[in-house]
Amino acid sequence: MATAVPPERHASTDDLSIWPASTTRLTLAVTAGFPPERMVLHGNTKSPRDLEAALRLGVGRIVIDSPSEIARIAAAVGADGRQKVMVRVVPGVSAGGHDKIRTGTDDQKVRSLPHRRGAQHTITRVLGQPQLELTGLHCHIGSQITDVKPYLVALRRMVGLMARVRDAHGAVLAELDMGGGHGIAYRPGEPALDLTALARRMRAELVEGCSAAGLAVPRLAVEPGRAIVGPAGVALYRVLTVRHTGEKVFVAVDGGMSDNPRPALYGVRCAPRLVGRASTARPCTATVVGRHCEAGDVLAADVELPGDIRPGDLLAVPVAGAYQLSMASGYNPVGRPAVIAVHEGTARTPVRRETIEDLRSRDVGA
Amino acid sequence: MATAVPPERHASTDDLSIWPASTTRLTLAVTAGFPPERMVLHGNTKSPRDLEAALRLGVGRIVIDSPSEIARIAAAVGADGRQKVMVRVVPGVSAGGHDKIRTGTDDQKVRSLPHRRGAQHTITRVLGQPQLELTGLHCHIGSQITDVKPYLVALRRMVGLMARVRDAHGAVLAELDMGGGHGIAYRPGEPALDLTALARRMRAELVEGCSAAGLAVPRLAVEPGRAIVGPAGVALYRVLTVRHTGEKVFVAVDGGMSDNPRPALYGVRCAPRLVGRASTARPCTATVVGRHCEAGDVLAADVELPGDIRPGDLLAVPVAGAYQLSMASGYNPVGRPAVIAVHEGTARTPVRRETIEDLRSRDVGA
Repeated sequence: MATAVPPERHASTDDLSIWPASTTRLTLAVTAGFPPERMVLHGNTKSPRDLEAALRLGVGRIVIDSPSEIARIAAAVGADGRQKVMVRVVPGVSAGGHDKIRTGTDDQKVRSLPHRRGAQHTITRVLGQPQLELTGLHCHIGSQITDVKPYLVALRRMVGLMARVRDAHGAVLAELDMGGGHGIAYRPGEPALDLTALARRMRAELVEGCSAAGLAVPRLAVEPGRAIVGPAGVALYRVLTVRHTGEKVFVAVDGGMSDNPRPALYGVRCAPRLVGRASTARPCTATVVGRHCEAGDVLAADVELPGDIRPGDLLAVPVAGAYQLSMASGYNPVGRPAVIAVHEGTARTPVRRETIEDLRSRDVGA
Repeated sequence: MATAVPPERHASTDDLSIWPASTTRLTLAVTAGFPPERMVLHGNTKSPRDLEAALRLGVGRIVIDSPSEIARIAAAVGADGRQKVMVRVVPGVSAGGHDKIRTGTDDQKVRSLPHRRGAQHTITRVLGQPQLELTGLHCHIGSQITDVKPYLVALRRMVGLMARVRDAHGAVLAELDMGGGHGIAYRPGEPALDLTALARRMRAELVEGCSAAGLAVPRLAVEPGRAIVGPAGVALYRVLTVRHTGEKVFVAVDGGMSDNPRPALYGVRCAPRLVGRASTARPCTATVVGRHCEAGDVLAADVELPGDIRPGDLLAVPVAGAYQLSMASGYNPVGRPAVIAVHEGTARTPVRRETIEDLRSRDVGA
């Protein structure tokens, strides 16, 4: 999570969104040195263990995803404690990419979130819990959204809800988290969300809406996870086989759905290009497939590659930093790749390649 | 791979199919004590490393997936060596489940396999390599096939090809591997392949076809991987949250697409049931979702569960032994589950649960 606007209300540093709730992820973040008080814990399935870990570690805010969580969290906090919370609201805005990653609409597995029309009831209950301190509202309208407009529509609705909360309870909510879903381009020519325009127009909309409603402008947060780490990563594959079939060229690489399941899951395609050597060969139309025994393991279909593409070549796939390594599996098993960090001509290896010893480490053979 | 029929030609024990080719998988199988001479190495992307490992370990047969592999394998074997190989042929039969796992038709990423019409050319080239000993043919017509018929059609075509090879080269092929793809039922009422009927009818077809063509009946092999391990596994989930929304009940469990990506990949659904306690509550219509932040993370939609389903309950999902743990990922990260082996009232833990130390073990922080 990175604070976006207005700048004068910025936290001194950025917060970290832990979504979905996971004790493991919380613990990893704390172990990595991130201050727990700047963490925000989300998710539609917070286990008792997750809540216990969040309270023990001192997580900054817990986002309430369902009315049923109110009593659970309050009980876990205990009579003497007090925990900052936010309430997640479904703004009823439909936006974004693949159906499977669309999360802001009503007809969803998360549809039991407090809808904005019913959200006041949830908010009233939260305000009635002395163990809970309601700092603001949260929403998340989808994934891979490339248009600013749905954010503005959702923001207007959230400001409207904040005004109704003020009218009903006199409670002034100091924070508004508009979530993420900021769309990025995986291939040349694909649309991407203009983050500068988003920040500018959301801020203007917020200031104007609050002014009209007589509200103090809340601290506005967004969660641009994919938009930050996606373009920061490049996946490198080694070409294993090249087959010419009629007009088509099939290029198989030494990875695939085990390191990047997005094509198989969502039907998305990548934009690989030859790196490591120059080629002046006439381009061919190629399909780049992974090494897994599934027809869905296709990284790119009908892309241009040099006609002399051959085994041993390296293919680079840009925009590989998000939802790839985090979803990597032990399928087949190829072994998960290393992560090489490159900065101004120097390289280091923060994550090493998975070895056969790693793959066997859980086989205790009992 | 398990030898199916005819029984009098059975190998003394079953073979093991390594598909797709993976040095890691080969090494794991050898380390586990499986004799390499009974392994069959498949796959459309055999890396130089895979071939080197296969030859070094003494793998029984390598299945040639593409004409371009012939020279590579012969060169790797070297002048003094000899390696048993089979040739994989596309029989041109379309059958089976989801498009993503259909593998026997022409318009596929594997379409550059020797098609049966062009296969003779590949076979001729293999026969011309003194380093390669062609033992037979291989085909694979798809996945999750529930009808015997496509196997019989493919088998007739394979026998026809064996006769043409005999006519052209005088070569009698002693083995025929009809691959796998044997469909199993994941939910009550779903169709499944009748394995007894498959064995009986394939054997009859083979004997009849060979007799008509004047061929000796080859050793017939099938690869019923999923059909063996799928029904052998039961996945156990703990219920984390239960939400009632109008007529619908949403049940979220402590796993999901990180341990079973099949619903998100192929849209399949499971048949969970309550275990661990008896309930006489009136059934409700429930949707069982995973704990991951994706709308595709749905294990079961509109299934009947006891109306008093509640957090802490255990749900058992049958037929969970195939393509689940093998595809499990570190997504979110939940941590991959343990494997408990149960036999006649005793339990042991061959694979332990993934810990936070496991998840951090590759983070070398260099």
